[in-house]
Amino acid sequence: MSIDAHRWLMTAVNAPLERASFRPEPGAADVVIAVAGCGVCHTDLGYLYDGVRTNHALPLALGHEVSGRVVATGAAAASWMGRTVIVPAVLPCGECDLCRRGHGTICRAQKMPGNDIQGGFATHIVVPGRGLCDVDLSRLEAAGLTLPEVSIVADALTTPYQAVQRAGVTPGSLAIVVGAGGVGGYCVQIARAFGARVVAIDVDEKKLEAISHHGAALTLDARALDGKALKAAVAAFAKKEGLRPTEWFVFECSGTAAGQLTAYSLLVHGATLSVVGFTMDKVEVRLSNLMAFDARALGNWGCPPESYPPALDLVLDGKVAIKPFVELHPLADINRVFAAVHHHEISKRAVLTPA
Amino acid sequence: MSIDAHRWLMTAVNAPLERASFRPEPGAADVVIAVAGCGVCHTDLGYLYDGVRTNHALPLALGHEVSGRVVATGAAAASWMGRTVIVPAVLPCGECDLCRRGHGTICRAQKMPGNDIQGGFATHIVVPGRGLCDVDLSRLEAAGLTLPEVSIVADALTTPYQAVQRAGVTPGSLAIVVGAGGVGGYCVQIARAFGARVVAIDVDEKKLEAISHHGAALTLDARALDGKALKAAVAAFAKKEGLRPTEWFVFECSGTAAGQLTAYSLLVHGATLSVVGFTMDKVEVRLSNLMAFDARALGNWGCPPESYPPALDLVLDGKVAIKPFVELHPLADINRVFAAVHHHEISKRAVLTPA
Repeated sequence: MSIDAHRWLMTAVNAPLERASFRPEPGAADVVIAVAGCGVCHTDLGYLYDGVRTNHALPLALGHEVSGRVVATGAAAASWMGRTVIVPAVLPCGECDLCRRGHGTICRAQKMPGNDIQGGFATHIVVPGRGLCDVDLSRLEAAGLTLPEVSIVADALTTPYQAVQRAGVTPGSLAIVVGAGGVGGYCVQIARAFGARVVAIDVDEKKLEAISHHGAALTLDARALDGKALKAAVAAFAKKEGLRPTEWFVFECSGTAAGQLTAYSLLVHGATLSVVGFTMDKVEVRLSNLMAFDARALGNWGCPPESYPPALDLVLDGKVAIKPFVELHPLADINRVFAAVHHHEISKRAVLTPA
Repeated sequence: MSIDAHRWLMTAVNAPLERASFRPEPGAADVVIAVAGCGVCHTDLGYLYDGVRTNHALPLALGHEVSGRVVATGAAAASWMGRTVIVPAVLPCGECDLCRRGHGTICRAQKMPGNDIQGGFATHIVVPGRGLCDVDLSRLEAAGLTLPEVSIVADALTTPYQAVQRAGVTPGSLAIVVGAGGVGGYCVQIARAFGARVVAIDVDEKKLEAISHHGAALTLDARALDGKALKAAVAAFAKKEGLRPTEWFVFECSGTAAGQLTAYSLLVHGATLSVVGFTMDKVEVRLSNLMAFDARALGNWGCPPESYPPALDLVLDGKVAIKPFVELHPLADINRVFAAVHHHEISKRAVLTPA
């Protein structure tokens, strides 16, 4: 087997990504995927611009939101050959004690493309042939979507899916999503698909306007309202809609200290605060409020591979719209696109396509 | 019915408690309990010295750790007459939507003696005749205990019981208790009774020494070790004992900012941090660590009445020792005892007895 491939390598913090050729060589249990699309995530920006450390030494191709087609396999992964798949952003080993006990999200041998192994800003990627999510091309076409577009299922969609599922949102719940951007927008839609009435909070009017057409029953501008006023507005909404004054589900998706403080201020009795976004920044909070409110805060790292098919179903069944929130760019433009996302000049999820 | 009774009223922050006579009058569904003992809790000190607000207006008798005997009842509570009981520190109404859905700990009509209603620093207390925990006097005697001593089951023991149960400690778990005092000491013993190997952390050598004889397999002095060193010491202990490096159960029982920071620094992958102690102070933490570690923080308010009998069983079956950690004082000495507890001159749980 000989495949001409290239990927874009991060060589240092703040340095331009560099194109490098390589020959994809699958191990016995690996597959080689011809990348259809790879989404640009907040996490990638954290590595490149903020100095968040990758587990794999540099140089490293970033990118963990990958869709594509299996074009080569090792001997033990032959059954994957030719299949169109989404690569889970976190791939548990499937064999360790944690995996066997159903805790794949904390598997210590897990592989995250663009962090533990070479990532998806590339023509090809080599990943373990395990837990990949099949994409039915006829259903995809019927849903008016393309394979590159659903790359974002690998993280932007499945991460909030896991958060909503783990938090236990049920019909009639009140969900509040702080940060209605790349991840939070899907969180709004998924919580709605789980039966919640959803309040979206952001500092960006455009994002609030967009999400008001996709699942948010109420949008609140955090620039105009402080924590107390936001809580009062949500409480008034709950009352008007006949929703509970207790047991709110708050999803922090902004990955900012300000967003985390807002989310924390929305705790009520029996509340669940899901920490979905990441920031290195610390926040000053009264931790005892968790005790006083009999509330809980749940961290969410990735999403188990077994939850990918039902998450993808939400997209293919038209319950979660992704088309309005994704835009495709050529992989060759990666440095320009990274800068534009970094400078908030692109508000949709940018997906880089090699073709 | 006419009972001569008195209670000690808090009239203002930092003012001496004042003895006041009253006539206990049960409502139709209430019972009058002749108090055998009432424990002095950190929470009572918070009301009296730190200005934490009680829900009931002052003057108010504090005290929510009550054992005693039912000496009068309303018509609808006649079945309680004559029974020896522990009064749960938080009494859910049992009838609202939250109670019916099993969320009694966040019942908005819940009654906490010494906060929502007149408390147990008194000869008598009037409480709803619902969810009281029967105390079998013959088992009590066989265990070498007295009714006043088991008053502390009402909060100091059941609060960590609920925390350990909710966190899901199982045989082979590694539990770490921060603050091995009035509540934390029982947390150590209960986690051990649930099958965990337990590490106790405190700043008080005497408390560590005491708990090393009652369930702590390792004690660590937080004055000698910073967060990183404590984590390394626990990790070394885990390795030596063949315990997991993941999924630690951390119980913050100190109710101090320093203790909360210590507890937070002990997060590992899949960890559960239970916030059991209360402080008004804020702490600065990287909330995203919950996400990065796929960890969770659980608040714990009180304990459902239905968990009191199994919690009491741990005491009566000799799995949790309370005798070494309790000392009785006459109720008439309440002002002296409060001051002594406040100034850390009494390290055991002080129980005030009217007799």
